[in-house]
Amino acid sequence: MAEVKSDIEIARAAKKKNIMEIGAKLGIGSDHLLPYGHDKAKISAEFIAQQQSRPNGRLVLVTAINPTPAGEGKTTTTVGLGDGLNRIGKKAVVCIREASLGPCFGVKGGAAGGGYAQVVPMEDMNLHFTGDFHAITSAHNLLAALIDNHIYWGNEQNIDIRRIAWRRVMDMNDRALREIVCSLGGVANGYPREAGFDITVASEVMAILCLSMDLKDLEKRLGNIIIGYRRDKSPVFARDIKADGAMTVLLKDAMQPNLVQTLENNPAFVHGGPFANIAHGCNSVVATTTALKLADYVVTEAGFGADLGAEKFFDIKCRKAGLKPDVAVIVATARAMKMNGGVKKDDLGQENIEAVKKGCANLGRHIQNVKKFGVPVVVGINHFVSDTEGEIQAIKDYVATLGAEAVLCKHWAQGSAGIEELANKVVQLAESGQSQFAPLYPDDMPLFQKIETIAKSIYHAGEVIADKSVRDQLKAWEDQGYGNLPICMAKTQYSFSTDPNLRGAPSGHTVPVREVRLSAGAGFIVVITGEIMTMPGLPKSPSSERIFLNDMGQIEGLF
Amino acid sequence: MAEVKSDIEIARAAKKKNIMEIGAKLGIGSDHLLPYGHDKAKISAEFIAQQQSRPNGRLVLVTAINPTPAGEGKTTTTVGLGDGLNRIGKKAVVCIREASLGPCFGVKGGAAGGGYAQVVPMEDMNLHFTGDFHAITSAHNLLAALIDNHIYWGNEQNIDIRRIAWRRVMDMNDRALREIVCSLGGVANGYPREAGFDITVASEVMAILCLSMDLKDLEKRLGNIIIGYRRDKSPVFARDIKADGAMTVLLKDAMQPNLVQTLENNPAFVHGGPFANIAHGCNSVVATTTALKLADYVVTEAGFGADLGAEKFFDIKCRKAGLKPDVAVIVATARAMKMNGGVKKDDLGQENIEAVKKGCANLGRHIQNVKKFGVPVVVGINHFVSDTEGEIQAIKDYVATLGAEAVLCKHWAQGSAGIEELANKVVQLAESGQSQFAPLYPDDMPLFQKIETIAKSIYHAGEVIADKSVRDQLKAWEDQGYGNLPICMAKTQYSFSTDPNLRGAPSGHTVPVREVRLSAGAGFIVVITGEIMTMPGLPKSPSSERIFLNDMGQIEGLF
Repeated sequence: MAEVKSDIEIARAAKKKNIMEIGAKLGIGSDHLLPYGHDKAKISAEFIAQQQSRPNGRLVLVTAINPTPAGEGKTTTTVGLGDGLNRIGKKAVVCIREASLGPCFGVKGGAAGGGYAQVVPMEDMNLHFTGDFHAITSAHNLLAALIDNHIYWGNEQNIDIRRIAWRRVMDMNDRALREIVCSLGGVANGYPREAGFDITVASEVMAILCLSMDLKDLEKRLGNIIIGYRRDKSPVFARDIKADGAMTVLLKDAMQPNLVQTLENNPAFVHGGPFANIAHGCNSVVATTTALKLADYVVTEAGFGADLGAEKFFDIKCRKAGLKPDVAVIVATARAMKMNGGVKKDDLGQENIEAVKKGCANLGRHIQNVKKFGVPVVVGINHFVSDTEGEIQAIKDYVATLGAEAVLCKHWAQGSAGIEELANKVVQLAESGQSQFAPLYPDDMPLFQKIETIAKSIYHAGEVIADKSVRDQLKAWEDQGYGNLPICMAKTQYSFSTDPNLRGAPSGHTVPVREVRLSAGAGFIVVITGEIMTMPGLPKSPSSERIFLNDMGQIEGLF
Repeated sequence: MAEVKSDIEIARAAKKKNIMEIGAKLGIGSDHLLPYGHDKAKISAEFIAQQQSRPNGRLVLVTAINPTPAGEGKTTTTVGLGDGLNRIGKKAVVCIREASLGPCFGVKGGAAGGGYAQVVPMEDMNLHFTGDFHAITSAHNLLAALIDNHIYWGNEQNIDIRRIAWRRVMDMNDRALREIVCSLGGVANGYPREAGFDITVASEVMAILCLSMDLKDLEKRLGNIIIGYRRDKSPVFARDIKADGAMTVLLKDAMQPNLVQTLENNPAFVHGGPFANIAHGCNSVVATTTALKLADYVVTEAGFGADLGAEKFFDIKCRKAGLKPDVAVIVATARAMKMNGGVKKDDLGQENIEAVKKGCANLGRHIQNVKKFGVPVVVGINHFVSDTEGEIQAIKDYVATLGAEAVLCKHWAQGSAGIEELANKVVQLAESGQSQFAPLYPDDMPLFQKIETIAKSIYHAGEVIADKSVRDQLKAWEDQGYGNLPICMAKTQYSFSTDPNLRGAPSGHTVPVREVRLSAGAGFIVVITGEIMTMPGLPKSPSSERIFLNDMGQIEGLF
């Protein structure tokens, strides 16, 4: 076997084309591409507006089984499939999420694919990139400052300072900021109160930016943010303190999709990155809808496994943006199947066909779930060098029993050459016209029933339980006109149930709803079923200790 | 008189050239210019390193009288003079500071000059620009997160949590964050302690970036930051918790100077923006030294009046970077002279030659002070339409009595055509070889004596008073090897004294030293003589309420 190169070695050896050339492939003139260096660019709002009458290309969702510590390679497969489609003669664009800066300093970073299926420049993508997350941080914190300033100068809106619903954000893993008391120090500094910070990807502004159709829609949604409540419990909106205009100005450039390239010089849109638990976990609507105007095929992904990611992609993003996915790829690995089948992490290197077969139940459940949305499915088996032929065949045989097909993909080692078969299968399914996409539940279903529908239909839960206060809250929102919103489930990504240790395909379990939150700007109801951490911490020996610039000015230790 | 256009109208009508063309004027190839859009670019570290053997151009400092509410127009004159020098055939580059985002949402923004002497794109310069301040915010807050994380995981360095010297920063006017208690909420969130936020321009990282010669120097200085003290009062450095490498990586691009252009398409470097009180208030050393390699003339400015700004420019920036200024321009206005002469703001529109004469004492003191550094001086009278010939002549006559010359400048209304006379005078003084620049005090003078030297020689104070604790602290730093550092005075900018209401040219006053701080990474001792606000608040009706995107996608209300 040839020497295995690291992701960063492969990325550094990439023969990148000038981003203007990549844009030209999609028919974007240099006037409409705002460069950020020679290898990144933003696409102008004007250009995007001009494309609206063009027909859409085909939309491919890449999703996965429940994540395991073995790694599935969803982004790698998304990038590889994009290259594969280009290889077989289709004009394809990859749409993925931007990476958060903070976590890179905790554990190893890298959210740009891997092996020979990467998006470049990966260093930039893991650091400041084109500044979108910084702009979101600024817009979010401007609103926070305006809230305390409004109260300081007389509180004309009568905001109850015990009921402020807007925290601050920072793109950093900083547990010390999770819970604070602010405005200490006397009269000049305001009214002391409990407050706190989330990481930027958990900001509602992030979710709003990713669901907005254009700048006008963005401004409207920002105005709809509920910043807190009065003593009579009536909501106070961001527009009530005139914050929406300035927030929109701060987000003017961040709203525009970022164009970069794969290692094979194919176009990739990398834009937006909302949390996949308290938000919907997909790249921006603007990036996806723009890509659909410019390409035959758009390959995008959703966060976590299909139970969370694909469900939200279909029920929130596709519903709200009017998208109609043509085919879904579910990524699985033999290693992850073994883990689902009960094998410990240290033993994953040994062949164990029985464990693979046992673990396939998890994959099977996801296949059946995705079909419930009317979207045809193909399984992509992301190949690891330790996989055996027997293990791969076991997965293929299992998937065939469900009326679907599993295709072995070697894009990590071979780039597009290793994923031609999946690309052809995707084209066949997409062009068959099989897709009859529809969301899982209608807009006008009562909110609690929407939760039950997701829990029973997708998680195979036996029941949903919730305190009266939660049910009353949902009723109150229905009375206030929010009953038509979709549900955004915040659940562990490791299991169909709310118990992260329950692998495989459990049934009949109970889904307890701990809390519900209204994201009135983003336009969904967050349903929390467990502990959700919105501000991570750093480990004992954070990776920042090993990150530095080498003598050639290259970044070491980030990947 | 013709209709007077607003700054933003003039800026929007600018015929900008592609930034690659502007770079080409300076001999910077497109490979070494990293574009940010079509009108901004960063200059590569490699290109800068290649210029080191070239001779330096002439260095011109633009400073001013003590600021008044009447406005002096220091940046406007800096930009205008750059254009004027280009007009008379000199290759000139303007070097100014970047603007802070936060204050733009409080009161009207605009730090890019005015009238027909502006740097463009002004909207970007007042918002995210090329992301430098966001990178500084990230690097600063990474260090803060690492400090609390170090303590959380066992505190190997034995940092005394009562003596943590590193706050957090945000580029926002947010008084609620001035004083907080962090790490609340129990075991998982750390040890509760008092903390707080400053605005990003007050970060020591900002000062460090602006004083570093290159990335290696930057990393070394970041490592030198004192983050706190142990119980035995020994300092703990950023390098002790291995933060310097990752901070440098975050600042990799922020370290490179930004190239933009004036309305007349002449090159301008806009880079760095440290506070002018607790820091030295100058644009970056890298920008200035690079510009000197590429141009015949470099025109730069320093914060506040000459008592603070020019003194720090000479004693901190020039001393540390080995710069030798050739000439200084002191900006004055008839209106400001009248105000110094006792006229109220509402009466500034009426001619009052006696008041002008009386107010000239302030200007005279600054002229004499700058000459103490061995640098020849010319006064630039920034013309306002309400000025009378008699008032202008009074200033000219006064300045002549001090052996200097005052030149009337109409760059605000006419661009470079209005400032040819000043440009010619600057060239004459610079090429005369008169400058015998030397800092005010030697490196090896004891710290307290350095403070006295500045106070007596520049402020004309009678004495400096300080508690024993302050004097002991200075002694202790001398013992630890910091005695050779320059002094960075934090004093009101409105007066030579520490009383902001004492205008004109007071003498014999007392300078009380309230506190001293060691900025070991930046390399200076901060001497605080009054209340210094490092986190501004927003006013009752912040300008954010009137900032929005109009239907053409243009920003309204920011200027």
